[in-house]
Amino acid sequence: MTPDHPHGPGRPRDENIDGRVFAATLSLIDAEEEVTASRLVERSGVSRAALYRRWPSLTTLIAAALDAERSGFPEIDLDGDIRSAVFGSIFGDGGIVAATGYSEVRFRHRIRLVMADRALQKEYWESYVSRRRAPIEEVLRAGVERGTLRDDLDVEACFDAIIGVFYYQFVARGDRIDDPATQQRVRSALDVVWRGMVA
Amino acid sequence: MTPDHPHGPGRPRDENIDGRVFAATLSLIDAEEEVTASRLVERSGVSRAALYRRWPSLTTLIAAALDAERSGFPEIDLDGDIRSAVFGSIFGDGGIVAATGYSEVRFRHRIRLVMADRALQKEYWESYVSRRRAPIEEVLRAGVERGTLRDDLDVEACFDAIIGVFYYQFVARGDRIDDPATQQRVRSALDVVWRGMVA
Repeated sequence: MTPDHPHGPGRPRDENIDGRVFAATLSLIDAEEEVTASRLVERSGVSRAALYRRWPSLTTLIAAALDAERSGFPEIDLDGDIRSAVFGSIFGDGGIVAATGYSEVRFRHRIRLVMADRALQKEYWESYVSRRRAPIEEVLRAGVERGTLRDDLDVEACFDAIIGVFYYQFVARGDRIDDPATQQRVRSALDVVWRGMVA
Repeated sequence: MTPDHPHGPGRPRDENIDGRVFAATLSLIDAEEEVTASRLVERSGVSRAALYRRWPSLTTLIAAALDAERSGFPEIDLDGDIRSAVFGSIFGDGGIVAATGYSEVRFRHRIRLVMADRALQKEYWESYVSRRRAPIEEVLRAGVERGTLRDDLDVEACFDAIIGVFYYQFVARGDRIDDPATQQRVRSALDVVWRGMVA
């Protein structure tokens, strides 16, 4: 069971419904239109009854749609160098920074939605963001166990410090991650954080 | 000339206009209503001509209003301990975290506005956020000069790492800063960042 298949595998008809509803949701979001049940029914061809049967609320549906096209958890090699594993999972293909199926426009829209709706924010946090963090936190814990990283680290707090650098670029500065100045600043900041983590 | 008095001192009549227009703007924002020139004229009693004379755009006006009730730059004692100075300016009275005239509701609204409007985001960044950072960056530079902090630090990147921890709590986790678990996590993260900065 992964966020891409919240109802488990083996239900191809339902996944087809998911796909149509998510596509309709994202097309509304990308067009800056409000997501309503009526519009979803109209655009997806899925019945209102099926929508309500499948998702307990529009909030839940939107959170699922926003995450649907993102790649799954990055594969992280726990045998290699811890720093490379963590930084690779952030900067590498399929990593946090990669725009794989998740454009800046959609990121900005997601932030607008969650800032307007704390229930959606909590739903999105619990169902997606916190799960997406898990494999990287696992690498950090492996680093602690090996003695590469300090044994008094609060791994969740460390991850907040790492990923907070990115959020700040997008949310406060309004800078693009592919801007060379942004890349340089992010790398400098992550060097500082990492230095504070090593044993 | 401070952000609270963008047109300089000595114009009491105009500051009164500022106050009325900002109050009208914030009352609309707090009521989750769209800020339009018509509504501002109606609520503030200030003429449309005066609005346009005073602010080049609604975007500029909203950015100014959002910052108007925030306290000025924190006073930082450069003679004392650098870490205490920086952490005090963040956690102390009038610091970044203090809710002085800047509620969480308004923060969330500000983020929604800047996520929807990159021009407003850049305006707000250049006129307010980047200026508010300045005194703390100055303390960090003093720390580098004294040899307390590493001489290869990118001070702007360090500040991003510090403040990014907070943004992540509000924007991704949706946690309140006065929640003890949040406080603990923030302090752990800042300990890591600080350790990466010391010489």
